[in-house]
Amino acid sequence: MPENLRTSSARDPAGKSLRPVDLLLGDADWVVTCDDNMSLVPGGALAVDKGVVIEAGSTDDLCNRYIGGREESLQGCLLMPGLVNTHVHAAMSCFRGLGDDLPLNRWLHEVVFPAERKHAKAEMVYCGTLLSAVEMLLDGVTTFCDGYFFEREAARAARDSGIRAVLGQGILDFPSPDQPDPSQARATAEAFLQGFPEGEERLRPSLFCHAPYTCGPETLRWVKDLCRERGVLFQIHLSETASEVEVLTDEYGVRPAHYLDNLGILDEGTLCAHGVWLDAGEISLLAERGAGISHNVESNMKLASGIAPLPEMLRAGVRLGLGTDGCASNNDLDLFTEMDRVAKIHKAVSGDPTVCTAREILALATRGGASILGRDRETGSLEAGRRADMIALDLNQPHLVPLYDPVSHLVYAAKGSDVRHVWIDGALVVRDREVLAVDVDKVMRDVSNLAESIAAGRPSHERES
Amino acid sequence: MPENLRTSSARDPAGKSLRPVDLLLGDADWVVTCDDNMSLVPGGALAVDKGVVIEAGSTDDLCNRYIGGREESLQGCLLMPGLVNTHVHAAMSCFRGLGDDLPLNRWLHEVVFPAERKHAKAEMVYCGTLLSAVEMLLDGVTTFCDGYFFEREAARAARDSGIRAVLGQGILDFPSPDQPDPSQARATAEAFLQGFPEGEERLRPSLFCHAPYTCGPETLRWVKDLCRERGVLFQIHLSETASEVEVLTDEYGVRPAHYLDNLGILDEGTLCAHGVWLDAGEISLLAERGAGISHNVESNMKLASGIAPLPEMLRAGVRLGLGTDGCASNNDLDLFTEMDRVAKIHKAVSGDPTVCTAREILALATRGGASILGRDRETGSLEAGRRADMIALDLNQPHLVPLYDPVSHLVYAAKGSDVRHVWIDGALVVRDREVLAVDVDKVMRDVSNLAESIAAGRPSHERES
Repeated sequence: MPENLRTSSARDPAGKSLRPVDLLLGDADWVVTCDDNMSLVPGGALAVDKGVVIEAGSTDDLCNRYIGGREESLQGCLLMPGLVNTHVHAAMSCFRGLGDDLPLNRWLHEVVFPAERKHAKAEMVYCGTLLSAVEMLLDGVTTFCDGYFFEREAARAARDSGIRAVLGQGILDFPSPDQPDPSQARATAEAFLQGFPEGEERLRPSLFCHAPYTCGPETLRWVKDLCRERGVLFQIHLSETASEVEVLTDEYGVRPAHYLDNLGILDEGTLCAHGVWLDAGEISLLAERGAGISHNVESNMKLASGIAPLPEMLRAGVRLGLGTDGCASNNDLDLFTEMDRVAKIHKAVSGDPTVCTAREILALATRGGASILGRDRETGSLEAGRRADMIALDLNQPHLVPLYDPVSHLVYAAKGSDVRHVWIDGALVVRDREVLAVDVDKVMRDVSNLAESIAAGRPSHERES
Repeated sequence: MPENLRTSSARDPAGKSLRPVDLLLGDADWVVTCDDNMSLVPGGALAVDKGVVIEAGSTDDLCNRYIGGREESLQGCLLMPGLVNTHVHAAMSCFRGLGDDLPLNRWLHEVVFPAERKHAKAEMVYCGTLLSAVEMLLDGVTTFCDGYFFEREAARAARDSGIRAVLGQGILDFPSPDQPDPSQARATAEAFLQGFPEGEERLRPSLFCHAPYTCGPETLRWVKDLCRERGVLFQIHLSETASEVEVLTDEYGVRPAHYLDNLGILDEGTLCAHGVWLDAGEISLLAERGAGISHNVESNMKLASGIAPLPEMLRAGVRLGLGTDGCASNNDLDLFTEMDRVAKIHKAVSGDPTVCTAREILALATRGGASILGRDRETGSLEAGRRADMIALDLNQPHLVPLYDPVSHLVYAAKGSDVRHVWIDGALVVRDREVLAVDVDKVMRDVSNLAESIAAGRPSHERES
């Protein structure tokens, strides 16, 4: 990035009383703020100080009011807030592409569960999460929300990469990779929260009850109480498949969202992943309670789980974000291509090309996602006071030419690979597509080595048939 | 690409009787041949001579039987045939992102048609097609099938880029950008075929009747007769929207595929784009006649046209390929992300995760596409005797690690941006993501300049509302 913002006499700092800031980025072809109005600034600039956004505006204007400790030109780039991936099992990158095109039950019981029983260990969680963090940073995600086992290792990986994250320790009423004795789940959860390093603003702990069909009402209650007490996010998979909804409705006499509400689970501190099979009453209830929904359409498509009623949830005012789900069912973590799919599939199934506009979907992938993680004061837009998490996309590429509307391009034409620079808390973490804090070759080698033993455990007929 | 295939004594050429070939590529992590059995070769190599594939096999084996005029290592890469994009309006890259999220009628009548009336001229067709050719080459497409106006200019752009193409001159019973007087359409078509340069094996002419609702039976008949006479591909849009099917069925008393069949249009030399609203009888008919269908799911999703019955067409044995459609309704030409969407959406809408496997979809994007263009003797696989159109993807990237199954990655994880090198007729056309024959910056500038005047013609409220 060349340091040449003061290219005209109009921007000459001499004789002006300028406010010093740590960083002044300017001359971006577009700044997409993702503020309340989704405002766009052509020829835009951003002033950042002590890791915080001070102001977004035109480059001429900001050059006449600020002087940067560093000043850099983003000519040819689009500057926007980093994306927020609200539902990931990051460690599962180790299982990327392990068993595609299978019925859900065979995929779970013959591929995923056996692989997890044998291989989901502390080392795998660290390596897999670090690989996912690197992939997400390179694709422009600056905040993700995770749920898995050995979650302290996931936190360590997130910390090493520099990404912002919410780390959810998984809880089940059955033996799990890091808790063979479910009666000890509470102790594990409390130890996880207790041991979570304080003073690390980028990382926040969370508890993740796997689902209402794997955690009984007792478990759901104590976990939610513990989350309330500690002020951390409660996560749960909700109504991903039609069959689980049938089973739960039979068992409890009400549909799953009402069941959770009867237990006192649904409030603004709860994030429900998927929400594919929600009826109108459940949608109203979720909107009323303020619980968040992570919409994971690619994973739902690949596993043929169904298509969540996003247009209906948007209309009802449900708090919404986007998520990729884990790599075992997607098979990547690119939230740009996810945006495209979200915008298109709901047009296709509703028969209405005006639903899920590019602007709405971009809002979900940024400010919406930050909100359902309870982190909208920190990230999700380039408004004054938010942490300076931002990404610059290289617009100077054939598939992004011509440009009539930057928001259209972000949703319908851009890919994660168009992201060139990434900042978190105002500091560069990716420069010219190089992740600065991580030895990426080593992470890829480590995961490839783990994958060799994972592949060795699979029935030999599985692939080559 | 380093020239270091002879790295072991086992591969020492001394004392062996080796067949000289122009090019020997080896040490690819995987060669994906896309032959009849979709065979995969780990540690693979490819021998190429005079622009033709001689043999694919293991690197050790080929090093012991061939000596290359050039020998190059593809360590860390996957080598496969170039993709075939069977339905594009390449010049429409000039309209990329012009009017998203609109009802189809408003999009056509308020955005596309006015823009075409004013701006679809020879210069736009040349520049837009060249931009699209560059985008496709960078995304690993080595053959595309086009349909637009001023198609001689599209051919000139394809020639300048080095891509393989079928160029379809558009024909309508209404005034069109290059033919204000429809009674002269036949003269235009004949002149186009007549003037098409002979001896250019990479480029083939075609005629494109826009649709059965814009070309009457007379036109359809003479165009198909002319195509038969000259041995060129006949193209047509078929049953893209439910409303056109209703109108045609009312008018002719039979559904559109039967109507075309009654006119003698359906045979192996006919390519129908879209085929969204085909019933079981039409699917059987198409399979029986051997007519090709270009499946364009992303465009159909974005315009909410419906979802074509791909699993049913596959089961019936319809000849199939994939297409992106033009950039005005997609909004990019990346056939890798298109493959992902095709594989996933049919799982989602059928509720069956086993339909449209990665292997089936990859076959459609390569050998299937070549076949429906009538060019399967030339391209679409790395079998002996085909022209050496191939691409190398860089596997050494976080989102492609680990690798259990290369075909899974190609469909579910790879993006066009993973393509590193592209060869057509055995000659490099893209090296390390640089398009060798085209001044890409100039093309982007030229299209951006055209776009300024296109944008100036739009109602000012359209974007910023």
